[in-house]
Amino acid sequence: MPQRPSGRAANALRPVSLELGFAKHAEGSCLVKFGDTHVLCTASVEDSVPPWLRNSGKGWVTAEYGMLPRSTHTRTQREAAKGAQSGRTQEIQRLIGRALRAVTQIDKFGETQIRVDCDVIQADGGTRTASITGAYVALYQAFHKMKTMGVIPTIPLTEPVAAISCGLHRGQAVLDLDYAEDSSAQADANFVMTASGKLVEVQATAEDYAFEEQEFLGLLALAKDGIAELVKLQRAALSKLT
Amino acid sequence: MPQRPSGRAANALRPVSLELGFAKHAEGSCLVKFGDTHVLCTASVEDSVPPWLRNSGKGWVTAEYGMLPRSTHTRTQREAAKGAQSGRTQEIQRLIGRALRAVTQIDKFGETQIRVDCDVIQADGGTRTASITGAYVALYQAFHKMKTMGVIPTIPLTEPVAAISCGLHRGQAVLDLDYAEDSSAQADANFVMTASGKLVEVQATAEDYAFEEQEFLGLLALAKDGIAELVKLQRAALSKLT
Amino acid sequence: MPQRPSGRAANALRPVSLELGFAKHAEGSCLVKFGDTHVLCTASVEDSVPPWLRNSGKGWVTAEYGMLPRSTHTRTQREAAKGAQSGRTQEIQRLIGRALRAVTQIDKFGETQIRVDCDVIQADGGTRTASITGAYVALYQAFHKMKTMGVIPTIPLTEPVAAISCGLHRGQAVLDLDYAEDSSAQADANFVMTASGKLVEVQATAEDYAFEEQEFLGLLALAKDGIAELVKLQRAALSKLT
Amino acid sequence: MPQRPSGRAANALRPVSLELGFAKHAEGSCLVKFGDTHVLCTASVEDSVPPWLRNSGKGWVTAEYGMLPRSTHTRTQREAAKGAQSGRTQEIQRLIGRALRAVTQIDKFGETQIRVDCDVIQADGGTRTASITGAYVALYQAFHKMKTMGVIPTIPLTEPVAAISCGLHRGQAVLDLDYAEDSSAQADANFVMTASGKLVEVQATAEDYAFEEQEFLGLLALAKDGIAELVKLQRAALSKLT
Amino acid sequence: MPQRPSGRAANALRPVSLELGFAKHAEGSCLVKFGDTHVLCTASVEDSVPPWLRNSGKGWVTAEYGMLPRSTHTRTQREAAKGAQSGRTQEIQRLIGRALRAVTQIDKFGETQIRVDCDVIQADGGTRTASITGAYVALYQAFHKMKTMGVIPTIPLTEPVAAISCGLHRGQAVLDLDYAEDSSAQADANFVMTASGKLVEVQATAEDYAFEEQEFLGLLALAKDGIAELVKLQRAALSKLT
Amino acid sequence: MPQRPSGRAANALRPVSLELGFAKHAEGSCLVKFGDTHVLCTASVEDSVPPWLRNSGKGWVTAEYGMLPRSTHTRTQREAAKGAQSGRTQEIQRLIGRALRAVTQIDKFGETQIRVDCDVIQADGGTRTASITGAYVALYQAFHKMKTMGVIPTIPLTEPVAAISCGLHRGQAVLDLDYAEDSSAQADANFVMTASGKLVEVQATAEDYAFEEQEFLGLLALAKDGIAELVKLQRAALSKLT
Repeated sequence: MPQRPSGRAANALRPVSLELGFAKHAEGSCLVKFGDTHVLCTASVEDSVPPWLRNSGKGWVTAEYGMLPRSTHTRTQREAAKGAQSGRTQEIQRLIGRALRAVTQIDKFGETQIRVDCDVIQADGGTRTASITGAYVALYQAFHKMKTMGVIPTIPLTEPVAAISCGLHRGQAVLDLDYAEDSSAQADANFVMTASGKLVEVQATAEDYAFEEQEFLGLLALAKDGIAELVKLQRAALSKLT
Repeated sequence: MPQRPSGRAANALRPVSLELGFAKHAEGSCLVKFGDTHVLCTASVEDSVPPWLRNSGKGWVTAEYGMLPRSTHTRTQREAAKGAQSGRTQEIQRLIGRALRAVTQIDKFGETQIRVDCDVIQADGGTRTASITGAYVALYQAFHKMKTMGVIPTIPLTEPVAAISCGLHRGQAVLDLDYAEDSSAQADANFVMTASGKLVEVQATAEDYAFEEQEFLGLLALAKDGIAELVKLQRAALSKLT
Repeated sequence: MPQRPSGRAANALRPVSLELGFAKHAEGSCLVKFGDTHVLCTASVEDSVPPWLRNSGKGWVTAEYGMLPRSTHTRTQREAAKGAQSGRTQEIQRLIGRALRAVTQIDKFGETQIRVDCDVIQADGGTRTASITGAYVALYQAFHKMKTMGVIPTIPLTEPVAAISCGLHRGQAVLDLDYAEDSSAQADANFVMTASGKLVEVQATAEDYAFEEQEFLGLLALAKDGIAELVKLQRAALSKLT
Repeated sequence: MPQRPSGRAANALRPVSLELGFAKHAEGSCLVKFGDTHVLCTASVEDSVPPWLRNSGKGWVTAEYGMLPRSTHTRTQREAAKGAQSGRTQEIQRLIGRALRAVTQIDKFGETQIRVDCDVIQADGGTRTASITGAYVALYQAFHKMKTMGVIPTIPLTEPVAAISCGLHRGQAVLDLDYAEDSSAQADANFVMTASGKLVEVQATAEDYAFEEQEFLGLLALAKDGIAELVKLQRAALSKLT
Repeated sequence: MPQRPSGRAANALRPVSLELGFAKHAEGSCLVKFGDTHVLCTASVEDSVPPWLRNSGKGWVTAEYGMLPRSTHTRTQREAAKGAQSGRTQEIQRLIGRALRAVTQIDKFGETQIRVDCDVIQADGGTRTASITGAYVALYQAFHKMKTMGVIPTIPLTEPVAAISCGLHRGQAVLDLDYAEDSSAQADANFVMTASGKLVEVQATAEDYAFEEQEFLGLLALAKDGIAELVKLQRAALSKLT
Repeated sequence: MPQRPSGRAANALRPVSLELGFAKHAEGSCLVKFGDTHVLCTASVEDSVPPWLRNSGKGWVTAEYGMLPRSTHTRTQREAAKGAQSGRTQEIQRLIGRALRAVTQIDKFGETQIRVDCDVIQADGGTRTASITGAYVALYQAFHKMKTMGVIPTIPLTEPVAAISCGLHRGQAVLDLDYAEDSSAQADANFVMTASGKLVEVQATAEDYAFEEQEFLGLLALAKDGIAELVKLQRAALSKLT
């Protein structure tokens, strides 16, 4: 078996931490760390919903994503200075939004929008999967606050959702790629799954190496175990809420 | 078994046609039709490559995507008038580019860029999969023209690539969703595969219904057969080139 | 007399065709061809009018124009990717809108806006005149549909409108310039006229050759005959509507 | 004969003045007044030409146009604040550029660009025709300065160019419309002509009233006399240059 | 004592003029000249206030700033063509707005917004201080017009406000820097003060020379005398209003 | 004496901390906290300088500023999503850049640019003064790294620079306003000063209360003491560098 650059076992996550309530002003927040990848997720409750939901009685959950300019190895130009969000940024924030909505009962909290911001403070691979995993925690805290205030009777989330990357690196299927692996992987996949093992989103990409079905199924198997571990950590972090 | 809105069998493609050389000016072109979804794909050969490839001896293949404002059931605002391409547009054109590059040998045609434009003339579901399928044909024709002109000795494509959508509709796994199915599907996946059955890209999305692993594997099986059929049609269209 | 590049007589149009109802979703549509110039015109009926007409009881007709990136001899950058419509695009779409409004009775169809999109599929000179000629047909079909549905009692168009280009090429006044002539013409004019021979718009431009009044009047005479022919073709295309 | 709102005769210009050298810093400048329409035209000499003329030995003349926000009866939003120039602005600046280039010998002043800015200080109709008339004077002064400095041997302008509007107002053909007439005219035309009576640009527009050929020829006749008068004033203003 | 480039005494303003009512259409206007720096200030009365003041019964005063492209020694790119206002432009227009609001009683003229445009016709240093000084005059005239029309009972301005620059040039504290001094000053400060000598805004900047407290107090002393002189000129200009 | 909302003495700073090297990838970094205001400052060394310094042998220091969307009490729209940096953002980042350059010897580190990013993680008033104070530390660390690597012989900074706000709150001059004070202050000033007590920048603003000269001098006195304290903390943080 080839050694991973980090020395981790093929099926080992990086050290993961989820710090609930990191941001003072937000209704919900979580600083999530997957190793050296650190993302601050905040959930903001807003009074109005997008136009197509007005007078529907339904709420909405949406997400935005950004990276601090020097979160990356070499500095990345600030998107606000460029005047536009990149295609990559838009793709990721759409993904986070879909993942959260897959476990949210949008007819259970009135015409309210929760906007979850995922801002990468430091990047070392897997920012989108860390974002989804932390965003769920921030979203839960925001709903918990609404429940505590008596705005909603129950928390309108069906079950936890988390995400992890897998890839083929030096011919081996590995879990939770860091930047060193990610930049030299032959193929790369992101899985979003629920606590009960259902698939919410699968994104597998092989820019210069088309992969066999068996290889793909190997990645899926790794992901299931990784997600189960992440869900445990989410539950532990949220257990502090009373 | 529930009836599909179109009356098609669960594993039936819509009528597919690939009209090679549709556009007079382009080096390669293909008007692709998946039923009522019509996409014009053109391949333009350009002398210069992106900055990061200058002096590398390598070429590049990239793609752009657009929809005519009234290709859709109700008119969609023109992106040029809005002043920006939507996140969806950027996601799709990045996908098409990756799919084409997965079968292109970028070190075999010098510092040349092929830009493939996929413009939707009429939309009825599946515009991204039709685009990829037609884009391969247009790209091949452009390389064929370069070969005929003596610019390159062989066509730098390893094998055909095509794409198809599958989804869960009324509980049934179905192939090649049209708009009527797409807008009411419980889950939706796009598969990009090569002629030899390798996976290039998998995108499965479950916005309001997380699906079981078995369901997902059912979609993958359907897709393999659909792709095989599309590859036959691509080969037939390209057989006209001498 | 100098030979025209196309071999046409000085007063000959290119082969013109008007294919009514080309687009499945639009209320009105026409694929117009002036030789190798192909433009898809669609008319979309919208419920709301621009702000300055609200509560006026009046409707509006407006136009948008675009070119597919590879409709041109060499690829033109996509305006949606550039983030702005060029001055030329805006000039042309304003011209099409004025031409259509000159024959439209805006107080006869309520507070409804018809938006006509003219998208150039293939360009070989004269895209703006082909657009106006086809746009009239698409607009008529949309009004016809509104009448058939009982929304309006009569079609609120006073008479057909069409457009043609003329120019001085090798010292000769010629009708309906194609790209080869257009790019080497000494002067260039576009005429928009009604079926009854009235002038709606005259745009004559002499960037590097100021022309004599007599030369200009020669172009006007040619245009009148060309427009008469186009109006016949418009009427023939529309005769299929019952 | 109907009275004009201003009391002028049908063929009378407004009082016109051309103040040469109004702007301290510019190589050429002219404050032009057509009655209450005041435009500051400046000509700036730049060392570089647009990309397509590099290494051609040829120069270029281009124009930009703007309106101060409160040059108009009610305030117009600042284009810099909106973030884009309107279609109208672009149409006008393209027109001014073409008019100037029609009398400029671009192969006689090296790879130099003259950029003429026309900024409307106060607007009362006819800003584009005043702009062209003043821009010629500013351009001449800039070339005169280049000649005085020994950069060019002769002034590379073939003859003066000027512009005037005409229109049908209460059924009467009138010259040089002010805002009161312009906003209620049945048809409206702008003519750009040279000192020798050649046509450089004709723009006739009939948004709600298509006009007869005879009416159009009446406007053309009026314009010829108006242009002759403007050229006299241009020559008088420039006679001060030694 | 070092000689100033202009030959002025250290505490001498340039010749200042304030031409009330320069612009025909605006409710208030003033062409202000500080030597060769000329700024046209216009005040436009608008019916609506910014969203945060709706239903507050309060009005608002805001400012916009711009420079004609060739107001400067060498041509500056037009901000409307660049598609954005520079940071400098935004900084200056925010400063002008704050200065005017410091002497405006916003609860005394209803839900009305006065927008003051300051457009630099010619620049020779000190455009922001000339703008503020002229803007006050234009604003006063607009309120005077509202009072004359019976819309407001009194002019809701507490006292005049004006602005002047000071700087350290060749070691000497000097008043009202022109471009020659400004571009070689060691430090540069702008003071906005009221007729009664109160400070509204102080902006002192030392990009390459941090200055001593005593030097700063010397600049402040100069500014007080300069402002007193400007206020006299403002009052003289406004005395023409009856 | 009125009590401050925070209970602090009038001349008391909030608890200040400067965490050197907070960001893994950046050449220099500092997480600065002024109470609940937290700003991450990173310094990135870049090989190229702005165009106007090419071939000058000189370097440059510049700054960018941003706020995380939910750093504020209520969510602020993401500037990257709006497509433009606000006037406030641009004003602040220009201020930070000038402050740093006032103590930097730009002719002592070659044609290198240091870009300092100040990103507000949590905001509670005084983000610009915290940014400047932390940015100096990050900049120093980046230069220290360059020196350690042998790129430069000495650290090209003349002395520390720091910044603090003062204001008039309930009639009392107070130091280092937090959000509660800032939003209800009568006047507000920011001072940037060096370790030796020189003034680099003074910005005093009185939107609704013009202040007396004596009041202003009281703020200046407070600031001098506050800056001295901040410089001590900067020196302590940097003493860890060997």
